[in-house]
Amino acid sequence: MSSGDTIRGRYIGEKIPRFVDGPEKTSGRAKYLIDVELPGMLYAAIARSPIPHGKIRRIDYEKIQRLDSVKAVVDGRESKLGNIGILRDNPPLKFPKVRSVCDEVVAIASTDEDKAKKYVQEVDMEMEELPPVFDPKEALKPGAPLVHEENGSNIVKLNFNVRAGNVEEALRKSHLVRKDAFSVPRVAFAPMGTLGALAFLDERNNLTLISNTQEPYQLKAELSKILGLTMDRVKIVQPYIGGNFGRGMDVYPFEVIVSLLALKTKRPVKLVYSRTEDFMCSPTRQGAEIEVTSGVDRNGRLTARRVEVLLDSGAYVSWGVFDARVMASTTTGLYAVPNVEFVATAVYTNNPYTINMRGAGNPQVTFAIESHMDMLAEELEMDRLDFRLLNAYEGQYVTPQGMRVDNARLRTVLSRVGELARWRTRERRSGRFRRGMGIAALFHVGGGARVYRTDGCGAAVKVDDGGKVTVFTGMTEMGQGSANGIAQIVASVLDLPLEKVEVIYKDDADMRPWDTATHASRATFVCGRAAFEAAKRLRERMIVETASLFNVTPSEVTLSGGKVEIVGKSTEELDLGKVVRRLHFQRGRLLYEYFYYDPPTEMANEENKGNISAGYAQAAQIAEVEVDTLTGEVKVLKVFSVHNVGRVINPLAAEGQVIGGIVQGLGHALFEELELKEGRVINVGFGDYEVPSATEAPDVVVEFVDSENAEGPFGAMGIAENGIIPIAAAIGNAIYDAVGVRLYKMPFRAEDVLVAIEKK
Amino acid sequence: MSSGDTIRGRYIGEKIPRFVDGPEKTSGRAKYLIDVELPGMLYAAIARSPIPHGKIRRIDYEKIQRLDSVKAVVDGRESKLGNIGILRDNPPLKFPKVRSVCDEVVAIASTDEDKAKKYVQEVDMEMEELPPVFDPKEALKPGAPLVHEENGSNIVKLNFNVRAGNVEEALRKSHLVRKDAFSVPRVAFAPMGTLGALAFLDERNNLTLISNTQEPYQLKAELSKILGLTMDRVKIVQPYIGGNFGRGMDVYPFEVIVSLLALKTKRPVKLVYSRTEDFMCSPTRQGAEIEVTSGVDRNGRLTARRVEVLLDSGAYVSWGVFDARVMASTTTGLYAVPNVEFVATAVYTNNPYTINMRGAGNPQVTFAIESHMDMLAEELEMDRLDFRLLNAYEGQYVTPQGMRVDNARLRTVLSRVGELARWRTRERRSGRFRRGMGIAALFHVGGGARVYRTDGCGAAVKVDDGGKVTVFTGMTEMGQGSANGIAQIVASVLDLPLEKVEVIYKDDADMRPWDTATHASRATFVCGRAAFEAAKRLRERMIVETASLFNVTPSEVTLSGGKVEIVGKSTEELDLGKVVRRLHFQRGRLLYEYFYYDPPTEMANEENKGNISAGYAQAAQIAEVEVDTLTGEVKVLKVFSVHNVGRVINPLAAEGQVIGGIVQGLGHALFEELELKEGRVINVGFGDYEVPSATEAPDVVVEFVDSENAEGPFGAMGIAENGIIPIAAAIGNAIYDAVGVRLYKMPFRAEDVLVAIEKK
Repeated sequence: MSSGDTIRGRYIGEKIPRFVDGPEKTSGRAKYLIDVELPGMLYAAIARSPIPHGKIRRIDYEKIQRLDSVKAVVDGRESKLGNIGILRDNPPLKFPKVRSVCDEVVAIASTDEDKAKKYVQEVDMEMEELPPVFDPKEALKPGAPLVHEENGSNIVKLNFNVRAGNVEEALRKSHLVRKDAFSVPRVAFAPMGTLGALAFLDERNNLTLISNTQEPYQLKAELSKILGLTMDRVKIVQPYIGGNFGRGMDVYPFEVIVSLLALKTKRPVKLVYSRTEDFMCSPTRQGAEIEVTSGVDRNGRLTARRVEVLLDSGAYVSWGVFDARVMASTTTGLYAVPNVEFVATAVYTNNPYTINMRGAGNPQVTFAIESHMDMLAEELEMDRLDFRLLNAYEGQYVTPQGMRVDNARLRTVLSRVGELARWRTRERRSGRFRRGMGIAALFHVGGGARVYRTDGCGAAVKVDDGGKVTVFTGMTEMGQGSANGIAQIVASVLDLPLEKVEVIYKDDADMRPWDTATHASRATFVCGRAAFEAAKRLRERMIVETASLFNVTPSEVTLSGGKVEIVGKSTEELDLGKVVRRLHFQRGRLLYEYFYYDPPTEMANEENKGNISAGYAQAAQIAEVEVDTLTGEVKVLKVFSVHNVGRVINPLAAEGQVIGGIVQGLGHALFEELELKEGRVINVGFGDYEVPSATEAPDVVVEFVDSENAEGPFGAMGIAENGIIPIAAAIGNAIYDAVGVRLYKMPFRAEDVLVAIEKK
Repeated sequence: MSSGDTIRGRYIGEKIPRFVDGPEKTSGRAKYLIDVELPGMLYAAIARSPIPHGKIRRIDYEKIQRLDSVKAVVDGRESKLGNIGILRDNPPLKFPKVRSVCDEVVAIASTDEDKAKKYVQEVDMEMEELPPVFDPKEALKPGAPLVHEENGSNIVKLNFNVRAGNVEEALRKSHLVRKDAFSVPRVAFAPMGTLGALAFLDERNNLTLISNTQEPYQLKAELSKILGLTMDRVKIVQPYIGGNFGRGMDVYPFEVIVSLLALKTKRPVKLVYSRTEDFMCSPTRQGAEIEVTSGVDRNGRLTARRVEVLLDSGAYVSWGVFDARVMASTTTGLYAVPNVEFVATAVYTNNPYTINMRGAGNPQVTFAIESHMDMLAEELEMDRLDFRLLNAYEGQYVTPQGMRVDNARLRTVLSRVGELARWRTRERRSGRFRRGMGIAALFHVGGGARVYRTDGCGAAVKVDDGGKVTVFTGMTEMGQGSANGIAQIVASVLDLPLEKVEVIYKDDADMRPWDTATHASRATFVCGRAAFEAAKRLRERMIVETASLFNVTPSEVTLSGGKVEIVGKSTEELDLGKVVRRLHFQRGRLLYEYFYYDPPTEMANEENKGNISAGYAQAAQIAEVEVDTLTGEVKVLKVFSVHNVGRVINPLAAEGQVIGGIVQGLGHALFEELELKEGRVINVGFGDYEVPSATEAPDVVVEFVDSENAEGPFGAMGIAENGIIPIAAAIGNAIYDAVGVRLYKMPFRAEDVLVAIEKK
């Protein structure tokens, strides 16, 4: 960089509307998967197992196969596919064993979508039923039916346990020891866009999959492995995505199925779930049974904490049970506790399988820990905020799990949210409608999360003769707004008008540089930093080349406001585009730079310890609720949410993420629960399964503390998941504050609250 | 580059089928402009001037404007558009003056294509007729009607003249001086795809133009200038293109019109010419009146040459009259002549305007010069081949115009084509069907042509985790096959299977690095070299990074057959994709390189001299014809074509280009002529205007001499135009050989040949 030049961050911290993808989406012009039609396209439908556990004796679809409109039928007998999943336990087409009611047995491709759906109902399956197991505790018992016989037991062989210090001894020496048990159910993802995929072969017989994935580069590798194709024969294309919240992190059986059918028929094959199918046959958020034990000394300081979780993985292992990793981080990192132990048991059952959802275990465990913290404070007769402040850390801190927190602001966010909510002076009401306030904090990665050996993302940036900048990023935009953030970052680095920046972030993944995956709130941090660095290189190149063009030293050149400025020269002549054209036409220069940013972090070691992220966020939320003591109905009136996420790139977008998370978490707190009966989802569709709407949305006050992360672009960390993490705990604690009843099980439905009040 | 590593050129010289775009095109899946449909799209139609020269007194379309299906009507009164063209003499919508019968006066956008076409017929125009001028010689006379009054005369103010040595004196001293005059008419481009464009606004109100342009980056600059938008607000998208042959080199009025209508209506607006419109209202190939004067010494050596051309530009100046530049090169460079003079006069008339077509003036002037050469030989009583061999140069040669020809092989190609055709021992026939052979040579740029200050092209190359390589090029593929060539070049540099290379060469031009334009046979040379260099950088990076990964020196590493090879290591582990994955996951490396190649050439100076190309091609053709002396019908039996175009990347593709050019030129030689009556094309459509079909296609024998260009990728030069250049001359000379009649005017229709025979 030339000595005279500084990057000012022109748009950083500005409330920039969603200009990159907003107009297309709000105008209805954006094409989602459901809108994509290809000539000669076939429609796939899947015949699924009618029973939760059993063996396929006979499948017969001979009559269907002979129908004109049916172009191909496949089942697990004929196809030689690899298995899906981290443990490779999920065959895309099941044979001979089925392990859950949505298991894919037969798939057909038809010229007619309705007929496809009808014919799969007519597939004749003769099943031998096996005794099923639905309760994870039952599944652990000796003699329980085995979901995967070859596994030897129903215990998923993954180790998420963490131990640091000596919990046993510390508890023994504690002034107070308390143990509480909590339960969080499965919930549905229910985004706007249902699951689906479209596969077709190009004329070189290479496979293209149009997928809502949030990890196109991993999907490409996985899908090619499962199909037995070399990776260069598989292309992933991402349309506009109608929300993912984490469920775009794994390969789906239907993605393999449409690919297989396209390979067989040589025609495009599409499958988009109906809302019913999406509710019944999608992986769910990971539920959990969570036991929290803590020891406290005489002064109210935490001495030890043990968290034990039981996770029902369902019939297969996807990313759901990996929620344990995040649960461990919060167990060890949310407050300063020297002795910690985290023990997770994940089990197979004949329920639907699970996948990670926004927060990835953190909302579940934070509900448990922060409810438990309130009960500890009460026993200690301390103010709940003071108890937290006492146990919070600030500044440099290394968690017992080895996570290095720089610039921790946990005390700051707790104090500030208390001030905002007037915690100390809050009023109480008597009568039918009682009001209360609850507080909860959070600890979450904000600087990527090294789950794979690389946690990096690539970016390429070029500036053209019109002074327009094109940014190529591997990042997936599934609604979170990172594409906008990247445009802002690049426009800031190059100091040019926002509308001069175009971000290439979707469609053909091969056209963009590699990204690990968009998860763990990492897109703006990792991909943003990659874009920052590529743009910085471009800025440096511009300055050096311009200096050479004008026969000045680089220190006399700077970029500002879309212009190239030279000390002592009129700016009129120095529009960026003009200078690029001169460099181009007079010097034969093409201004094109790229960068691959991989944060300086480490993978967790065998003890599940390590500094997996280049930044950790803290936040504190206070929820104010009103409880109708007559009906048990809880109304969340207001939420205060104060965050340390480093420097905020776009407060409008960051606030949107926080508010969105709060409202989504409010649904989980108050009413959302996927009800399973014999392994089958019974509350299907938005009639039976409520999600929060505008009427339930509380007023939300969001604040960000001044902060800066050393690695993030312009000092930023990620924030996509943080809003949702503490909200259930804050609401639960507020209910206790209002009516004195403690709810150990989510959701806090009116009837549950009423029963608790009456019991009390 | 590591010392041990060499680039072998695995696929260079191999007959590689058209695998990049061939399958999409031959299967009918390729989407051409006519296939593109957008939601809410409107159709534009243009009301054109009914008279060749006049003033618009009144335009009335009030009634039309009020119709439901009509969404916008525009004319030249209201729109403040810049003018099109090199001389900015072509208003996209004309007012008040019209200068040719196709002049655009009013344009409407309608929801219905048929109605749009109907309504423009109903636009009421009151015109004041001005005296027109159609004959360029008349246009030069004092008192001729002025097409552009502000120009002061009808002479186009562009200087293409070249002078070197002293022609006057050399002619005076010559043993023999001869002067001949030739005439080449206008012909139609008539590619498969008719002209058209589709404009739409994205939601940021930026304009996207889907265009068949062959210069997307220049078009973007021009169109934004004409519309008064900054360049970042204009995007050019290229669909599959159904042939251009040079006519994609300028902005079209209809491109501005659909853009204007899209800006007005905020809806997509499409206009695709019918075949009739394409014949009537497209610019034509440049016709020419050409006078050649040569002096020869006693030994048969050329002493001087003067070529004077008269070019009818039509109503406006596009690239047609620039054909003079290429005519000058051939005048000065085809044979060794020390004293040369080229004088071009271009004039405005009220005819359709002209644009450069394949060869860009060279087919026209080569017809004249090579016919004239035969007549000189005859007067000298020399064999026509010997006369040419005597005047040909070989090895290093600098033309009097300053073009540096390295490795000239003009004598070689002449000798070789003579051998191939058995020139010395050819048989003659008597009777009704007479056979004859004609020979003609060519001189043409093969290493780009510096028309703009840069003649460069950019390329970016990346390799992904699957070992697949993606190449981004600014090049335009309009049928010539360069995209395939680039894939071959990159696969050769990286030594990996062809199917591992994907070339991004179409769609959004902003996604690809800048290119000057695809013209002057430069795509494989310039863009190919850019791709070569980017791939070479990638190869070097791969080798250095791999060496570091395996703790060996770079000289121990090489890339071969899609594998990374290390001395003494098993190759099994070293699949390219695997190594990339290891570099990626273990070292955080992203393998991405780019290059901007601008040939080391110079722009022509004020005297129109300079070394504008980094390579010059020579070729010689012999046509064998049979003339029916009863009907005058000429049948081309066989063509022998021997080329020096450096190293041939793909003989299949190069042969295809040569054969295609020969067949296209055969049409021009024997029957194609656009007939104008009062400035209006009267032979419209393939019924009235014949183009050659398979039945007319002769046997063609193509050979390439061993050669290498120092700058071209793997030593290659361009070849797209060369087949067409000498064919008319070769056929004309063969007719003379067969029946002893000399045809000075193209085409050599049966009736013209018969008249000539009878006259004789």
